[in-house]
Amino acid sequence: MAPATVTIASGATWQEVAADRQRHRDESIAAVRPPVPEIRPEDVPVSTIAIPEKLLTAREVQITSLDVPDLAKRVASGEWSTTTVVNAFLRRAGIAQKLTNCLTELLPKRALARAAELDRYLADNGKPIGPLHGVPFSVKEHIGIKDEDINASFVSWVGRVSKEDALVVQCLEEAGAVVFARTTQPQTLMHIETSNNLYGVTVNPHNTTLTAGGSTGGEGALIALRGSLLGIGTDIGGSIRAPAANNGIFGYKPTTMRMPTAGWSIAMGGAESILGSVGPLSTSLEGLRLFAQTVVGRRPWLRQPSLVAMDWRDPAQFFPDRKIRVGVIRNDGVVRPHPPILRAIDEFVTKLKSHPNIEIVDWKPWRHDLAWSVIAKLYYPDGGKEIKEIVESCGEPWRPLSKFMLHENPHVEPLTIETLWDAVVAREEYRNKYAQLWNETAAGRADGRPLDVILCPATPSVAPKLDTSRYWGYTAQWNLLDYPGIIFPTADFVGAGGPDAAAREAPYAYPDGYEPLSPSDAYFRDQWAEHGVEGYVGAPISLQLVARRYDDEKLFKAVQILLETAGLPTAVPA
Amino acid sequence: MAPATVTIASGATWQEVAADRQRHRDESIAAVRPPVPEIRPEDVPVSTIAIPEKLLTAREVQITSLDVPDLAKRVASGEWSTTTVVNAFLRRAGIAQKLTNCLTELLPKRALARAAELDRYLADNGKPIGPLHGVPFSVKEHIGIKDEDINASFVSWVGRVSKEDALVVQCLEEAGAVVFARTTQPQTLMHIETSNNLYGVTVNPHNTTLTAGGSTGGEGALIALRGSLLGIGTDIGGSIRAPAANNGIFGYKPTTMRMPTAGWSIAMGGAESILGSVGPLSTSLEGLRLFAQTVVGRRPWLRQPSLVAMDWRDPAQFFPDRKIRVGVIRNDGVVRPHPPILRAIDEFVTKLKSHPNIEIVDWKPWRHDLAWSVIAKLYYPDGGKEIKEIVESCGEPWRPLSKFMLHENPHVEPLTIETLWDAVVAREEYRNKYAQLWNETAAGRADGRPLDVILCPATPSVAPKLDTSRYWGYTAQWNLLDYPGIIFPTADFVGAGGPDAAAREAPYAYPDGYEPLSPSDAYFRDQWAEHGVEGYVGAPISLQLVARRYDDEKLFKAVQILLETAGLPTAVPA
Repeated sequence: MAPATVTIASGATWQEVAADRQRHRDESIAAVRPPVPEIRPEDVPVSTIAIPEKLLTAREVQITSLDVPDLAKRVASGEWSTTTVVNAFLRRAGIAQKLTNCLTELLPKRALARAAELDRYLADNGKPIGPLHGVPFSVKEHIGIKDEDINASFVSWVGRVSKEDALVVQCLEEAGAVVFARTTQPQTLMHIETSNNLYGVTVNPHNTTLTAGGSTGGEGALIALRGSLLGIGTDIGGSIRAPAANNGIFGYKPTTMRMPTAGWSIAMGGAESILGSVGPLSTSLEGLRLFAQTVVGRRPWLRQPSLVAMDWRDPAQFFPDRKIRVGVIRNDGVVRPHPPILRAIDEFVTKLKSHPNIEIVDWKPWRHDLAWSVIAKLYYPDGGKEIKEIVESCGEPWRPLSKFMLHENPHVEPLTIETLWDAVVAREEYRNKYAQLWNETAAGRADGRPLDVILCPATPSVAPKLDTSRYWGYTAQWNLLDYPGIIFPTADFVGAGGPDAAAREAPYAYPDGYEPLSPSDAYFRDQWAEHGVEGYVGAPISLQLVARRYDDEKLFKAVQILLETAGLPTAVPA
Repeated sequence: MAPATVTIASGATWQEVAADRQRHRDESIAAVRPPVPEIRPEDVPVSTIAIPEKLLTAREVQITSLDVPDLAKRVASGEWSTTTVVNAFLRRAGIAQKLTNCLTELLPKRALARAAELDRYLADNGKPIGPLHGVPFSVKEHIGIKDEDINASFVSWVGRVSKEDALVVQCLEEAGAVVFARTTQPQTLMHIETSNNLYGVTVNPHNTTLTAGGSTGGEGALIALRGSLLGIGTDIGGSIRAPAANNGIFGYKPTTMRMPTAGWSIAMGGAESILGSVGPLSTSLEGLRLFAQTVVGRRPWLRQPSLVAMDWRDPAQFFPDRKIRVGVIRNDGVVRPHPPILRAIDEFVTKLKSHPNIEIVDWKPWRHDLAWSVIAKLYYPDGGKEIKEIVESCGEPWRPLSKFMLHENPHVEPLTIETLWDAVVAREEYRNKYAQLWNETAAGRADGRPLDVILCPATPSVAPKLDTSRYWGYTAQWNLLDYPGIIFPTADFVGAGGPDAAAREAPYAYPDGYEPLSPSDAYFRDQWAEHGVEGYVGAPISLQLVARRYDDEKLFKAVQILLETAGLPTAVPA
């Protein structure tokens, strides 16, 4: 692609830059053949999940209804060519864009050229080029694609071009996967929703009055609509997990420095007191695992030496006796989750408890309010100065949740070297304390075995109303601790159960005269009071499982066992 | 022990504090039974290596002449009790102190109490408590010992007491090892010599006109005299490797965050742009390996969650065909090594080259001067302010090499958050460049195999004259890159060869009219011109092998194969 020419540097206004980016996106969709059906904005219903199937051919539906490993098998066996598969996903992704506004562009030319190469390879060699041969994947915009614009949603950065693919993209493509779509993210990348001045707002396909979450919100919406089965996101406070949870798909935030970050574009380069992770979102747990196994299998630390050179272990080796000790957090002591979330935890725990292999323990959250103050300060050691300059230099307006994080956040202040060190010491003290508490769970046990994992809400609410995702604690907690986390859907939705839906939540309702735990808690209580079941109807209900730092593979096996034990699917039904 | 009462806080002068610490040290030595023989300072010769054997019993000599694994075997078999072994090392260490001034204290009471426990355990259970049962070990002072003073050589910090043993000490003791001695380090911990205002100067046992190196200089001298077979040091710029090299013993700087650092005492807590490593010094390669295997085998990351949860792999799995590709650096382009070092590399390479399994490649150092400027800036992001305040608050004078690092170092300047980020970006760019160069060594090869290891000088000189260790580049280079490094002796010494010794170095002498590469190079050239073979006589000649980040276990196997191939010992002969 030619680089963007309508840029702030070339004298355009922010509105002109945004219009040009949208034109570019629309042209990339218009290039898809057969053409992506038109959908007028006024025709988009509250629930869009069922729409793509009505607009696609039977074969396209069949292809896009598979899971990642099945799709790879069908391509490897020659049942479908990679070209056929890529075309199906280009079409379905184009539809997803028209329903939820989740794309920054499609990459039909590049993807189809690569697909042709892969088809030739398979024909010539009789075997796939790698484990992901023919699997299309999507990617959050700020993860670079060679020769394409990379703006990280900053209007003033439009015109920057990546010299090469981000390393994670290289790793996937080396294994035969095909990048075909780029997706939206919020202004500053630091909302857990997706709203920016280039593309507007990405909404939730299950209920378009709700957010898709963020910052990897484009992926969340796209994958929920099966416009992609596998996408790459990033997470420094919940940015993979919030959209996975909001959209009812699977998401995995790895321990930092296990997956390659080289080639992403972020502000505050050189800040490293809190690190972000690159990780996958997918329609299945197996999609996440294949991503991790494939990427780590490429030994990316040889190309990005800041990564930890830790091989991907086979999750099958963990829990050979399938016995698991699960700590449970229902309420972090800062914000009480909404009734559907509390109900989901209790229902899940009830199913697990009945099984003799699963031991359930209450985990008492240790000062999660302190955790938030520690991480929030370290997000912006310069007090947000650099990001403020980037945004304000071009006149683009502040989106509400950027203000929430940067302007209304009491923990953000410009640090000196000395106060930065103090904040890092506070971070380490918190991490050490949590490790100590975890170790103490082994005390007095004959088997000397501590907790294996913690089950907790993904967020205090199902997908929130737009611009109301004003609490990160349930996800950022694990970024501070650098624990890996996996989001899984419970296969339940707000309002499921028809007219009796509200009754299902009633036992979990806020008690009369409820005293909020914090101002954030009052805010969330008020959201529930205002919107209730009706307001969130259709929203998927998801949960989170976390494990100790570097226990990523163990976490995968734990999620699998717990879902199987509870009788829940490990893939989103098509 | 009772905490120090003569402290700056209690109103003492720095000289009084120092005198009290020396008194305390001397009393701890005086408590050893049978008494440690007196050695008058005026009776200490230039070479002290042969002295301890003359002052010890035959059994003490026999015990202290073993290597770590042999010693552990003899204790496990019941041949000697741990009590007997500990007493032998207490006596030999006391002698080492009188020869080189390497101790801050002995710990006879604690060590003998633990020894008695271990002896009872063996008697009761018929098997050792762990792989290091009965092996005494020494430890650099700033690594905490429960209830003991921990001052990190800052006079104003005398009076601080550790609440518990440092985690690495816990790990070793859990495996049956016994801490029995604490050793000297320089003012600010940031010289590669050992000179401070509490204890004075630690000298080299091979030639007492030379430095023992630093900052783990006490360990270097103590272990060279076999007052300990295994000691714990720390290294952020060469502090394990310089003393290992200067004293002709083995030393291992691990990749950072593989060995526990919790419980050490350092200034600038919270600074993390450049990390230091904890690691061992020993009389043998196997001593280093056993340390690493034992410590990592304790899974210290569960107690110190900042560590990488990476198991210790068996080095035996690497190089199954014993084929190794070795890059060689003779001269880093900044400071030309002295003739004995250049000769040692050439002689070693000549021996290796004759073997078909060893492929030797010249490694062109890429801007090691830049590397030094990057790391030196990141050592002191506050421009040295905190350390200057700690030192100056009590009136203790600046030692010459503290001035060299803090006051005369052109790269040290106070940073802001923004300039810190710039410096971190420069660090990452350098690391990435080196990774790229390393990857490029695979280009055009049928086996696609890059270099395995780099062989290089440990330091530009053998053990320098006191206060002249004014170039860190050959070690700090690998701290910047976070590559693991092992120092090994070549079993050669300056002046070996008697009257013809100088002739052996002549071909490597500086050419007439030599143009220095840098001011540091001129300084080292002048040192050689002034002192020559005669001045450094008896100094061990050591070399360094480094591997890529996290390739620690592979590095061990490479050192073993190279030493065996060259016909050099993997343990210092007793």
